[in-house]
Amino acid sequence: MMGRHHPAARMLCMNNFRIFAMLGLACAACMTAAAPADGPSYTAGGELNLPENYREWNFLSAGLGMSYGPTGQTDANNNPRFTNVFVNRASYQSFLSTGTWPDKTMFLLDIRSSTSNGSINKGGRYQTDLVAIEAEVKDKGQWKFYNFGASGTTAKAFPQSERCYECHSKNGAVDNTFVQFYPTLLKVAREKGTLKPGVLRETP
Amino acid sequence: MMGRHHPAARMLCMNNFRIFAMLGLACAACMTAAAPADGPSYTAGGELNLPENYREWNFLSAGLGMSYGPTGQTDANNNPRFTNVFVNRASYQSFLSTGTWPDKTMFLLDIRSSTSNGSINKGGRYQTDLVAIEAEVKDKGQWKFYNFGASGTTAKAFPQSERCYECHSKNGAVDNTFVQFYPTLLKVAREKGTLKPGVLRETP
Repeated sequence: MMGRHHPAARMLCMNNFRIFAMLGLACAACMTAAAPADGPSYTAGGELNLPENYREWNFLSAGLGMSYGPTGQTDANNNPRFTNVFVNRASYQSFLSTGTWPDKTMFLLDIRSSTSNGSINKGGRYQTDLVAIEAEVKDKGQWKFYNFGASGTTAKAFPQSERCYECHSKNGAVDNTFVQFYPTLLKVAREKGTLKPGVLRETP
Repeated sequence: MMGRHHPAARMLCMNNFRIFAMLGLACAACMTAAAPADGPSYTAGGELNLPENYREWNFLSAGLGMSYGPTGQTDANNNPRFTNVFVNRASYQSFLSTGTWPDKTMFLLDIRSSTSNGSINKGGRYQTDLVAIEAEVKDKGQWKFYNFGASGTTAKAFPQSERCYECHSKNGAVDNTFVQFYPTLLKVAREKGTLKPGVLRETP
């Protein structure tokens, strides 16, 4: 019975081929939907949107009280600040493969106050309230910088006259980024040979 | 033509139904494959496997030199250690919804040395070499602790006599975990009302 191609069966075959093709597209859509949506998006006025789920992006490293942090080292109570660095997941995977950042790479700097006293902790410091969120984005080959503050959801790019542009361009170990402070990516950049020559004055 | 159900067409329909069902399963498989595989897995001998991609799990927070850290606060050069906490992505999503940890929750503690001197940094501390990786796993309702050291890929559970068991059970703000030190999850636990009563001696 199955070997016989009745006209009605042929017509069904053609229609089913279309349905298969649609199912295939639906499957591709499933995969796309399951992959994390990340990277920069902008308002109609060109401001950068803060991604709601940036804490689910890839963590690169955290520092405490580092002096290149643009929002300073301490809060009003003289507590140094933690700086947590996240990057969008697609660009992270790309960096693991190539040691470089593709276009649409987006860094988020999650800046938090710190304390020593709480619960069972007896020394050192842990993280508390959010102080500000900053961003660095590569779009159409250009890096730009943004500051959302503690509660902003959109931010304008800093003007090119801001120091961050020159400092990142001059001192970033890979492209405009401080890979020298992200130990797992520093290893990748060494292996891929993508460190900017002469930038690392001291090997961490 | 399409309204007529010739026996051959009916047979094709049945077969196509099976194919559709298979495509549906394949689509479900696509989605499963795209989701990150996470949570604990064990060797045949019952040792915990170190997940290769744990740095792609959800970052919870980082501390510096905290005194409850089981591997001590400083390295041989008196540099305090950073402790980066990651949790498997499925359990993270579950916590966001419920404020509690499901079975198969796996924490990884990525312990790193620190330095102040390198590149353009002039103060504070940033992370360098891996010192050790530790794990806390909830499996069949029981929490267990593991230490992979700096280069291990499998680890045996610590015996129940180790202090970590009593300390986490007594002082964990949610279940056996130190949610009091993870500011974004602490907020979730407060909202969901899942903080263990009386554990937080001081609100961070």
